[in-house]
Amino acid sequence: MENRKIRMGMIGGGKDAFIGAVHRIAANIDGQVEFCCGALSINPETAKESGTMLFLPEDRTYLNYEEMIVQESKLPADKRIDFVTIVTPNFAHFAPAMMALDHGFNVVIEKPITLSLDEAKQLQQKVKETGLTLCLTHTYSGYPMVKQARHMVAAGELGAIRKIMVEYPQGWLSTLTEREGNAGAAWRTDPTKSGKSGAMGDIGTHAAQLAEYISGLKITKLCADLNIVVPGRGLDDDGNMLLKFDNGANGVLVASQIAAGEENALKIRVYGEKGGLEWHQMEPNTLIVKWLNEPAQVYRAGQPYLSDIAKHNTRVPGGHPEGYLEAFANIYRNFVLTLRTKLQGGTPTEAMLDFPNVEDGVRGMAFIENAVASSQSDQKWFDFKI
Amino acid sequence: MENRKIRMGMIGGGKDAFIGAVHRIAANIDGQVEFCCGALSINPETAKESGTMLFLPEDRTYLNYEEMIVQESKLPADKRIDFVTIVTPNFAHFAPAMMALDHGFNVVIEKPITLSLDEAKQLQQKVKETGLTLCLTHTYSGYPMVKQARHMVAAGELGAIRKIMVEYPQGWLSTLTEREGNAGAAWRTDPTKSGKSGAMGDIGTHAAQLAEYISGLKITKLCADLNIVVPGRGLDDDGNMLLKFDNGANGVLVASQIAAGEENALKIRVYGEKGGLEWHQMEPNTLIVKWLNEPAQVYRAGQPYLSDIAKHNTRVPGGHPEGYLEAFANIYRNFVLTLRTKLQGGTPTEAMLDFPNVEDGVRGMAFIENAVASSQSDQKWFDFKI
Amino acid sequence: MENRKIRMGMIGGGKDAFIGAVHRIAANIDGQVEFCCGALSINPETAKESGTMLFLPEDRTYLNYEEMIVQESKLPADKRIDFVTIVTPNFAHFAPAMMALDHGFNVVIEKPITLSLDEAKQLQQKVKETGLTLCLTHTYSGYPMVKQARHMVAAGELGAIRKIMVEYPQGWLSTLTEREGNAGAAWRTDPTKSGKSGAMGDIGTHAAQLAEYISGLKITKLCADLNIVVPGRGLDDDGNMLLKFDNGANGVLVASQIAAGEENALKIRVYGEKGGLEWHQMEPNTLIVKWLNEPAQVYRAGQPYLSDIAKHNTRVPGGHPEGYLEAFANIYRNFVLTLRTKLQGGTPTEAMLDFPNVEDGVRGMAFIENAVASSQSDQKWFDFKI
Amino acid sequence: MENRKIRMGMIGGGKDAFIGAVHRIAANIDGQVEFCCGALSINPETAKESGTMLFLPEDRTYLNYEEMIVQESKLPADKRIDFVTIVTPNFAHFAPAMMALDHGFNVVIEKPITLSLDEAKQLQQKVKETGLTLCLTHTYSGYPMVKQARHMVAAGELGAIRKIMVEYPQGWLSTLTEREGNAGAAWRTDPTKSGKSGAMGDIGTHAAQLAEYISGLKITKLCADLNIVVPGRGLDDDGNMLLKFDNGANGVLVASQIAAGEENALKIRVYGEKGGLEWHQMEPNTLIVKWLNEPAQVYRAGQPYLSDIAKHNTRVPGGHPEGYLEAFANIYRNFVLTLRTKLQGGTPTEAMLDFPNVEDGVRGMAFIENAVASSQSDQKWFDFKI
Repeated sequence: MENRKIRMGMIGGGKDAFIGAVHRIAANIDGQVEFCCGALSINPETAKESGTMLFLPEDRTYLNYEEMIVQESKLPADKRIDFVTIVTPNFAHFAPAMMALDHGFNVVIEKPITLSLDEAKQLQQKVKETGLTLCLTHTYSGYPMVKQARHMVAAGELGAIRKIMVEYPQGWLSTLTEREGNAGAAWRTDPTKSGKSGAMGDIGTHAAQLAEYISGLKITKLCADLNIVVPGRGLDDDGNMLLKFDNGANGVLVASQIAAGEENALKIRVYGEKGGLEWHQMEPNTLIVKWLNEPAQVYRAGQPYLSDIAKHNTRVPGGHPEGYLEAFANIYRNFVLTLRTKLQGGTPTEAMLDFPNVEDGVRGMAFIENAVASSQSDQKWFDFKI
Repeated sequence: MENRKIRMGMIGGGKDAFIGAVHRIAANIDGQVEFCCGALSINPETAKESGTMLFLPEDRTYLNYEEMIVQESKLPADKRIDFVTIVTPNFAHFAPAMMALDHGFNVVIEKPITLSLDEAKQLQQKVKETGLTLCLTHTYSGYPMVKQARHMVAAGELGAIRKIMVEYPQGWLSTLTEREGNAGAAWRTDPTKSGKSGAMGDIGTHAAQLAEYISGLKITKLCADLNIVVPGRGLDDDGNMLLKFDNGANGVLVASQIAAGEENALKIRVYGEKGGLEWHQMEPNTLIVKWLNEPAQVYRAGQPYLSDIAKHNTRVPGGHPEGYLEAFANIYRNFVLTLRTKLQGGTPTEAMLDFPNVEDGVRGMAFIENAVASSQSDQKWFDFKI
Repeated sequence: MENRKIRMGMIGGGKDAFIGAVHRIAANIDGQVEFCCGALSINPETAKESGTMLFLPEDRTYLNYEEMIVQESKLPADKRIDFVTIVTPNFAHFAPAMMALDHGFNVVIEKPITLSLDEAKQLQQKVKETGLTLCLTHTYSGYPMVKQARHMVAAGELGAIRKIMVEYPQGWLSTLTEREGNAGAAWRTDPTKSGKSGAMGDIGTHAAQLAEYISGLKITKLCADLNIVVPGRGLDDDGNMLLKFDNGANGVLVASQIAAGEENALKIRVYGEKGGLEWHQMEPNTLIVKWLNEPAQVYRAGQPYLSDIAKHNTRVPGGHPEGYLEAFANIYRNFVLTLRTKLQGGTPTEAMLDFPNVEDGVRGMAFIENAVASSQSDQKWFDFKI
Repeated sequence: MENRKIRMGMIGGGKDAFIGAVHRIAANIDGQVEFCCGALSINPETAKESGTMLFLPEDRTYLNYEEMIVQESKLPADKRIDFVTIVTPNFAHFAPAMMALDHGFNVVIEKPITLSLDEAKQLQQKVKETGLTLCLTHTYSGYPMVKQARHMVAAGELGAIRKIMVEYPQGWLSTLTEREGNAGAAWRTDPTKSGKSGAMGDIGTHAAQLAEYISGLKITKLCADLNIVVPGRGLDDDGNMLLKFDNGANGVLVASQIAAGEENALKIRVYGEKGGLEWHQMEPNTLIVKWLNEPAQVYRAGQPYLSDIAKHNTRVPGGHPEGYLEAFANIYRNFVLTLRTKLQGGTPTEAMLDFPNVEDGVRGMAFIENAVASSQSDQKWFDFKI
């Protein structure tokens, strides 16, 4: 492979789309990715205008993803994109992802991976068959202090894990904003576009993935209470859950979009025999480590005493705050390192492969389906089935 | 009634007892209470030594509560105590409280009020019959910013309440400290002395009382998961709970004594249609008030913009932190104001009566019994029965 | 000495006086002090009403301090007070203190000790001559985490101290509140009652005392800029200062009463060769300890890992916040322990003697006079003269 | 002008250079800049390797800046860079900046702008003559909440400003790390490479620029105490300063690199007649706004209630933390918007021109020279001379 950037095409993410812009920034930051083409909107005008704004060549500004995948696959190897990024609403993830894999393109997908567990399993099968790489952007596992937390748990510093408290309160759906022109709210609260669950699918999945990522444990049982709090809404906007993990630890998970006044207050606490960890997404460069009978410690991003994996996912020294976009960029960076290594015929290291993948996607869809089933049941504990 | 202090006798609380000392400080702070006599320990030596240390006269240093109640009731009105404070372990609350009421003494009891719901109901009946006053020291409702929170909810500033998250993590029972000479741990983990529940009875009741106190709502359903996390322990040391309140709001309650590294981290968040409240016991002079689409506000104890009820329960201006002992003292102060008013033939105001009473005690015992029953059941939701 | 409480009389501190009430609470908390008599106001009506409210006997409710000191000195030893507490405005400290010492009474004085350095030196001489004990209530050195900080510095945990940043911003004099009926503001901004300095005398002295107390160093040079920020005010309401300490360390001190929106935000940071300490008065149970190349630590009041001196000045376990009143009470407790030991013919320990005394008072007055002189001078550095 | 990215060449910033990487990330984030060429190191091997790592074409990987400027100026307009970014140590800013301007290139320079005030004035003159744009990367004024603070002060929300406290403590020079292979420390503590001042030049200039940027005021007098705390060091590693501003406000500025345990703890507080502002660089998405007699407010980045200028400098909604790199990128974005507008023949708006420029550079050098002169003088107050 010549010395070059990795080439990206984007599906969805036209002007005014929040998450598409985030993916582009995340891909840009480290100067490792070249943004080559896009099918940026199903509205042709928007697609073209977006392409111009983003300096895409006209002949690679496509009007739909099918055209993009077909045309790109015909380009010579020294021009053709290496991967597609899919940033459409949930219902429009599966088809382009399958088609991209079928045409030999690696894939990045915004979470949740698909509209249903069944689709997720099909994607999993396709990834296996093609040997290509699929990356799922569960952003929060990209933060360096989350990786430090995972490292400390895995190293046994806390002893066996006993309890996990994870919460993700937001307040932006406290009113029926989906009827007041908020496009993001509109599709997220529409079952045909969002899937079986609202809040639990949109942000509860992040919380569950984070809990499993840091603890190294798997949820085995859950007892869910999903609620439609704002009258007239089509999907749950709030939910609480009791959890059991595969080592016997217990947990609580809260995901709410009607917690009025909250921004994006994802927080996790993990308690083991010897101590506990606490991490807040909104102040992400700090990891509080608590000990039995010793002063708590304040671990900070960018410091020399951190683990290699935390350092690998940091760009600037301690005291220079990194944030959400850098966490997102870490996922891209590791995905791109993996791709480059594979393109060069090498084997990616564990640090390179440290990004959410199709297995996380399948687990996330199972989480949603189990949560919805549990919430509708009179039975207390529900096995986590995949 | 002549101009004098209100007179107190104490049952339990000999030297080295944590909570007895706290009650004495709470009674002392405002200079309204005279500590006159005590049956401070079932150990006669300890009782006498404690009496000496506390400057009690020898003839009012009793060796058991029966003697104290009988002797004090024979004293002339201008010497006799006005109330007894009971600070023994849970199992030794009921009998002295009944006897004190029967002999015409008002009562302060450390929570939980009794060993069982049935005992609590008997006490409730006795209070009703005697017309005397019983005060239950649910400390945390004594904090001024908790009262401010209750005031703001009652005034409708948040709109209808939709969600309550309350948690009380401690770490001090992360090991089998009850077998290493920790007396407080020993009786708290012994069902014969503590009652049907450990952590949920000891601190979960505080969390539930706080949630109901601030919100003005009542728990109507719960789904509990109580756990014995440390092997070999006799009672639950950890628990999680889903809640429903009488206006349809949902909630989550966590009480744990195995959250390694946590001190006494009681925290509550209450969300309404228009905004949310957040209060931490460990930084109690701050109440964070969050709004939809407006900056959050930081309400601070001692400030002129607070409600009358918050001001009534504060001693010093803003920026001079008050704490746990002052919150405790507020309960005593209001109880004593009520007593003085009744002794003078008056009617206590609402602000005077703002302390936990026998009804809170009954509700607390019902909470424990419902939680234990729910935890043992396969049924998801359990009605809150009294 | 028989087994009894230590007896206190109070000069000043009638109803509505802020600091008098604080002194009474501080004396009450631990049940070691009996409040026996007072000359509570120069207004006879107020003096009598205050005496009644505070349950003083009529014959020990005096109308002026001279009467109180004379009458009390004639009482038999088993009734006579042990000490007087002087809580009048600054200008009325010196005369009653001298008279009390002359009549054999120990003394507690609210800071600043006198109106001038010269008076302070006379008091110092009188204390020396009489062998009595004088306690100056520099409250902030009473906090347990301040004592922990002092302990850690003295033990060399930070290495040699290099830099101290201390600040005390308040906002309550941001307007001419002294002309709007605020009595506390009125005398504090009146040179005849407050002395040569306003903000620097009222709160700057606390900041300087705290810096010297924690660091164990002495200020040797200063360069002060005192300001009257609010037009029409009679004394400085704001000031900044560069400092040099006796080991060569440098420092900055800020004291302001026009920092609009600040409450009582005293904060200190001390940096040594190996690490730094940070303490905030408004969250006083936390001491942040920072290290070169290691995670910072969060020391918390009431924890077993603290020094003996910190534990000696704490009443409740970690997580049960103590505050301003308890810090104040620590000063009283240590003073009373000292008195009791001396009354019993013993020698007070270092822990008992750990309260500000007449030497601190002299140093505080010298600080004020040096600061005022420096501020008026064109010379950069000013030696700290006593 | 055709629809294209703005083209950048870089001088300095080879592999392992901290600030060069930061500039590239800042330029990359928004996808508006194409990194075309570089003279990345004075070491030819490093220059070539860095060029390869960064995917530069071989023929635009230059071995020195003179070659780069000459060669690029000969390229046709549709290939030639639009601006150079200079990220060498301080002493190597002036010559390439002058040469770039002389050849028609716009310039970005890392601060401080030059080695001396005189050089800065020459650059100022050159910018004026050429009509080109020079951008100085005082990063901290790029944060959205800093812009919000400036907006609120300018709008008079705080009333007239009375006091500014700004501090910038770091701990990384607590030991002689410049002798242990730390290249960044080595040149920063070497007067021939860094200039007349160490800490005050490196970070004190940031603090001063931030104070003036937010307040809209100018420093008119200062009284400085610069210190070499670590024995053997060649330049000040610590300093404190009293300030006066042009409206009569007073201030304190602290800049230290020996505050052991501190990371990059830049913090500013600004007090006016009606309220105060507080901002911490390490938690940059929060601006605390304090009011007289009203609760403080917590303004948060990304919220709808912010000013237009704060929104213009934000990429993601509230609760998704942005950090240092995004603040840096805001400076680049505004610079590039200005360039694009000028290239299109338009007039940049105030929002576009909101980046530090050559005037800030001149003021920064004057600040350094005045601080050094004041520190060496016995005179208390020193006029701020340019």
